[in-house]
Amino acid sequence: MSTAWTSRYAQRTRGIQSSAIRELLKFTQRPEVISFAGGLPASEVFPADRFREACCKVLAEESHVALQYGATEGYEPLREMIARHIARYGIRAKSENVLITSGSQQALDLIGKLFLNPGDRVLVEAPTYLGALQAFNVYGADYLSVPSDDDGLRSDLLEAPLRAGPKFMYVLPNFQNPGGTTLSESRRHDLVSLADKYGIPIVEDDPYGQLRYEGEHLTPLVVLDRENLRRDQGYSIGNVLYLSTFSKTLAPGLRLGWIVAPPEVISKLVQLKQGADLHTSTFVQMVAHEVARDNFLDEHVKLIRRVYRELRDVMLDALTQFFPAEVTWTKPKGGLFLWVTLPAGANAQKLFEAAVRENVAFVPGDCFYAPNGHADLGRRQMRLNFSSPQPEQIKEGVRRLSIAVKQQLESLQPLATVL
Amino acid sequence: MSTAWTSRYAQRTRGIQSSAIRELLKFTQRPEVISFAGGLPASEVFPADRFREACCKVLAEESHVALQYGATEGYEPLREMIARHIARYGIRAKSENVLITSGSQQALDLIGKLFLNPGDRVLVEAPTYLGALQAFNVYGADYLSVPSDDDGLRSDLLEAPLRAGPKFMYVLPNFQNPGGTTLSESRRHDLVSLADKYGIPIVEDDPYGQLRYEGEHLTPLVVLDRENLRRDQGYSIGNVLYLSTFSKTLAPGLRLGWIVAPPEVISKLVQLKQGADLHTSTFVQMVAHEVARDNFLDEHVKLIRRVYRELRDVMLDALTQFFPAEVTWTKPKGGLFLWVTLPAGANAQKLFEAAVRENVAFVPGDCFYAPNGHADLGRRQMRLNFSSPQPEQIKEGVRRLSIAVKQQLESLQPLATVL
Repeated sequence: MSTAWTSRYAQRTRGIQSSAIRELLKFTQRPEVISFAGGLPASEVFPADRFREACCKVLAEESHVALQYGATEGYEPLREMIARHIARYGIRAKSENVLITSGSQQALDLIGKLFLNPGDRVLVEAPTYLGALQAFNVYGADYLSVPSDDDGLRSDLLEAPLRAGPKFMYVLPNFQNPGGTTLSESRRHDLVSLADKYGIPIVEDDPYGQLRYEGEHLTPLVVLDRENLRRDQGYSIGNVLYLSTFSKTLAPGLRLGWIVAPPEVISKLVQLKQGADLHTSTFVQMVAHEVARDNFLDEHVKLIRRVYRELRDVMLDALTQFFPAEVTWTKPKGGLFLWVTLPAGANAQKLFEAAVRENVAFVPGDCFYAPNGHADLGRRQMRLNFSSPQPEQIKEGVRRLSIAVKQQLESLQPLATVL
Repeated sequence: MSTAWTSRYAQRTRGIQSSAIRELLKFTQRPEVISFAGGLPASEVFPADRFREACCKVLAEESHVALQYGATEGYEPLREMIARHIARYGIRAKSENVLITSGSQQALDLIGKLFLNPGDRVLVEAPTYLGALQAFNVYGADYLSVPSDDDGLRSDLLEAPLRAGPKFMYVLPNFQNPGGTTLSESRRHDLVSLADKYGIPIVEDDPYGQLRYEGEHLTPLVVLDRENLRRDQGYSIGNVLYLSTFSKTLAPGLRLGWIVAPPEVISKLVQLKQGADLHTSTFVQMVAHEVARDNFLDEHVKLIRRVYRELRDVMLDALTQFFPAEVTWTKPKGGLFLWVTLPAGANAQKLFEAAVRENVAFVPGDCFYAPNGHADLGRRQMRLNFSSPQPEQIKEGVRRLSIAVKQQLESLQPLATVL
């Protein structure tokens, strides 16, 4: 009897679709295409020599550890390094607060697995990170979407959805993906105190925090969380699970991220991770530790900031030069993305098809909205990445894109006149 | 409001316990302890120099690929290499049939995620691999356990549980963990034809297949599957998902495994993997490919076989020399483990406590049985690993263990007489 595979799949897999970005990638890999679609770091800045030295050292001195099974929690010196590193941002953590994950994506998957029964609600920003929606969807998440503006999540609209009892809220406070926006200091205070009032945990996803190109670093939610004021256990994590990664500072090909959380949550996540992949590659963890040590990571991040700031400026200038006045976009102070909003009546999906003919790619905005999460707006939005293309490609790509934009807007004009 | 974390956890996490083996590891890491508890490959055989050369080459020539994001399916040349490699065992596969996973453990997690609704049944051997139970438990699996003997799963007892409609059956045909047994050729035929009769997919887990120390390689289930006879699509995978790994041949610290399956199943698993960890480390995949190529892996596996065969023989000899006649054990033709059964009335958990006092460790048998899966027998069984300790340690460890065994059996004697 031939297996009818589809009939055997679990309910949770219904509606799990290959992401739009994934399908896009096939098109964007053609050499003639200028892609603003990915979220790829610039591969020119990867510190390949430092990696080679680190590999040689780890394999010469500790291959019996690096190539062997390791602890599910992660490589202890790396956990300690991360705890030390985040202390500069005021996060008081010990290595027992740190779980190494196979990229931040695994952190999101484990958090979904730990907290979500089918039908449970997650409070998210509108728009929000697509990969988080993918991770939570598998566990049957429903969503409460809160709109955001240039200062990030609208904390004045938080109280009603918090009262609806989400399992947790998921926020990217710094240089949000896809919005490029940063949650303002005063909204951070509001958000933390409201979450505290309703007893709703916060998942603070901070992959881009170190990639700030202007202005002052803002206090992480995990530090504002008022649990800090009460605890004296050598760590200061209360109501917040804090996530970050080496993907944007060292290299995404490592697949190394981490969760900072209270020990009782870490312990439960460790049990789930054990069943999910036993542990993250010992070899990769030891190499990353060797690469990052002796302040190399800090120096390297300075280089990345210089490179990406320039690329951001090139994109902002090109948008001003080429795009029609009716189109608006965010001015990110850091990160990898900016977010374009077209005038009412425009359609980003149709624009994408036109852009493809011009050999330029972006991600249409609607896939960054949770179901029922204000996606009307998303239909005329698009995410542009500026960290991956070269400066000349950015200018040329924005020029090509502007042609498609103008054509679409012109085709809208007569219709508006008729109506 | 302080978060009561426990009250927020999803139902699926209830009853997820830290595994017995995990807790054991803390004890076994003491230098004075001889451990038969782990499943660790011998770190002496790790090809560290070859790894160093591979890292240097990959980072010198392709760091922009190795350190960058990659495809969820895996690094294409590695997928092709795996497809070529398994062809020698008669498995006709193309790279599109191969999904690279973050260790075999992730393969088990993704399979649980794809197929299991809470309450769905999985047909397993009794005993079976603990890590598979952990992976499936999270998705709410129930189990149908089928006893095994020296020839592996008792295929004569399969029909009733197959009729009960499991979502799939999970089998380790070669040098089973924990049993050390190998499914006989005739039972392989029976099992595949019964699975076909009832339309039940087979998950064939084969981490140890290449580590055969005597006798002829037996045909994998995926090759016997009669779908082969009907299809002509360039691949020959019908009703079987075939799993393997580099953990026992190259190094477990890489966390590299794979699933071979029909393209429609691979495509669904890819979507789930995307949400779980985006992809497995590009760098690790490229290094493993570079290490394994040009027949290095084949030559290296020959070395491993020689080393492990000797260790197995040392353990078998020591058991014959020191253990009382009432104790029996399997004689594995390959793999890393053998399986000891104590006489009726004995208790492996109590034996473990006594063994700890002698500074020797093993894994008590009951944790390898699914709930309601003949664990009575498991209570007087234990798994011994022979790949990790040195020959002298094996002799001394078995001697120490035999002291604890004899003491327990002597304490049982009077009781038996009284009854």
